[in-house]
Amino acid sequence: MDFTDPTAIRQAIRRGEWTRTTAGLAAGYTQANLVIVPRDLAYDFLLFCQRNPKPCPVLEVTDAGRYEPILTAPGADLRHDLPAYRVFRNGEMIEECQDIAHLWRDDRVAFLLGCSFTFEAALLAAGLPLRHLDRGCNVSMYRTNRDCVGAGDFQGPLVVSMRPLPGDMVARAVQVTARYPAVHGAPVHIGDPDALGIDDLSRPDYGDFLPLEDGEVPVFWACGVTPQAVALAARIPFMITHAPGHMFITDIPDKTLAI
Amino acid sequence: MDFTDPTAIRQAIRRGEWTRTTAGLAAGYTQANLVIVPRDLAYDFLLFCQRNPKPCPVLEVTDAGRYEPILTAPGADLRHDLPAYRVFRNGEMIEECQDIAHLWRDDRVAFLLGCSFTFEAALLAAGLPLRHLDRGCNVSMYRTNRDCVGAGDFQGPLVVSMRPLPGDMVARAVQVTARYPAVHGAPVHIGDPDALGIDDLSRPDYGDFLPLEDGEVPVFWACGVTPQAVALAARIPFMITHAPGHMFITDIPDKTLAI
Repeated sequence: MDFTDPTAIRQAIRRGEWTRTTAGLAAGYTQANLVIVPRDLAYDFLLFCQRNPKPCPVLEVTDAGRYEPILTAPGADLRHDLPAYRVFRNGEMIEECQDIAHLWRDDRVAFLLGCSFTFEAALLAAGLPLRHLDRGCNVSMYRTNRDCVGAGDFQGPLVVSMRPLPGDMVARAVQVTARYPAVHGAPVHIGDPDALGIDDLSRPDYGDFLPLEDGEVPVFWACGVTPQAVALAARIPFMITHAPGHMFITDIPDKTLAI
Repeated sequence: MDFTDPTAIRQAIRRGEWTRTTAGLAAGYTQANLVIVPRDLAYDFLLFCQRNPKPCPVLEVTDAGRYEPILTAPGADLRHDLPAYRVFRNGEMIEECQDIAHLWRDDRVAFLLGCSFTFEAALLAAGLPLRHLDRGCNVSMYRTNRDCVGAGDFQGPLVVSMRPLPGDMVARAVQVTARYPAVHGAPVHIGDPDALGIDDLSRPDYGDFLPLEDGEVPVFWACGVTPQAVALAARIPFMITHAPGHMFITDIPDKTLAI
């Protein structure tokens, strides 16, 4: 497998040859969160994304029934080309699977949302340390006490990812990620976790705990897991997502997303 | 009338005391393009905006039937608070009016889209000359040969606005407007009008002609008139818009839109 070519990696995933996280694959190409809903929920979800652009920056929305994202990865097939999917029904996660062909219908609309892997590459390039990568684990993610702006039935809490950074590097991290609004952009909060309703940093709701070292500040970015928290909180009738960390790899070079 | 307060101006407009362009009113507050469509067209139009963020940067979408934009101007009434509206039916502009209460229905969805008045204020603040303001006229606007990315029935040409700038100021204009993606952002094209299918700069499709002086370059930005061109080109069954230059004034300070 060629670990640098988006098409080759998607095809390997489609053949079932890669079932792990996509972190580190196709360096330099944008990875995406996936949300699939039936057409009768698509307007409200698109509106939800418009009203909450930091957790839900939309890269592409497919026409109903089309599983090929013609704008961001022509030739790809969203039914097969992610290593792992999650299926939500009526507010419960009912299945985790490596293929969703059995769930595809003519009314399915797929949303690709920007992913922090893109801005992490930019942070690394700017010389900022990312502990979860050093440790080979996932970032810490937390449900906050901040409600997203609702749209129709889509209502629920903002989920954030947290990366600890030395105090003298926080401003640089803001500058670097602000250039990437299509992949969550600048942090939503810096410092005091209490202000987000996070009682205990050592117990993340998703991902792994990253302890703070002396002089470090927790920096919180809006997170693409938010729609999954909304599916649960709002008991959305039907939604398919990627499994955390198991993203869709597009053909978009990261650099083209910088403003 | 207090020309600096968004609420006071909207109320004066509502009472019919101001029917002219909103250019220069409420300096420092964001003005918006308006597009109203029935709910059954709203998804495709929202998708059209998502696929064409430069001409159609969405500031707010109201819930169906709600004429109050609760996020950007609480208390306002989109049926009355613009000085002039245009009504399109089946691809024709059938009416220009100062009030749309007679056309409001429970299925109406209003879109507020960013307007170049915001970035013009930023350009002026950066010391860049804007000839149409010096002359007290409108910018030049042109239908181009570039198709927007279609969504459902919404298909049509990109409309651009043109401002002539001295060659040594073009880069600065790019830098300044790039900070405002919510109001069309950086230019879509600089120089040669032929490349956009514009045969004759002296005959704009909308607005007024601005002759180029020696050493000046035409700089083209995506324009919020694009949905009106799409309503005509795609024969959209029903759409209400603002009349060009007669915008909706929000409570959002321009500066909060800068990234």
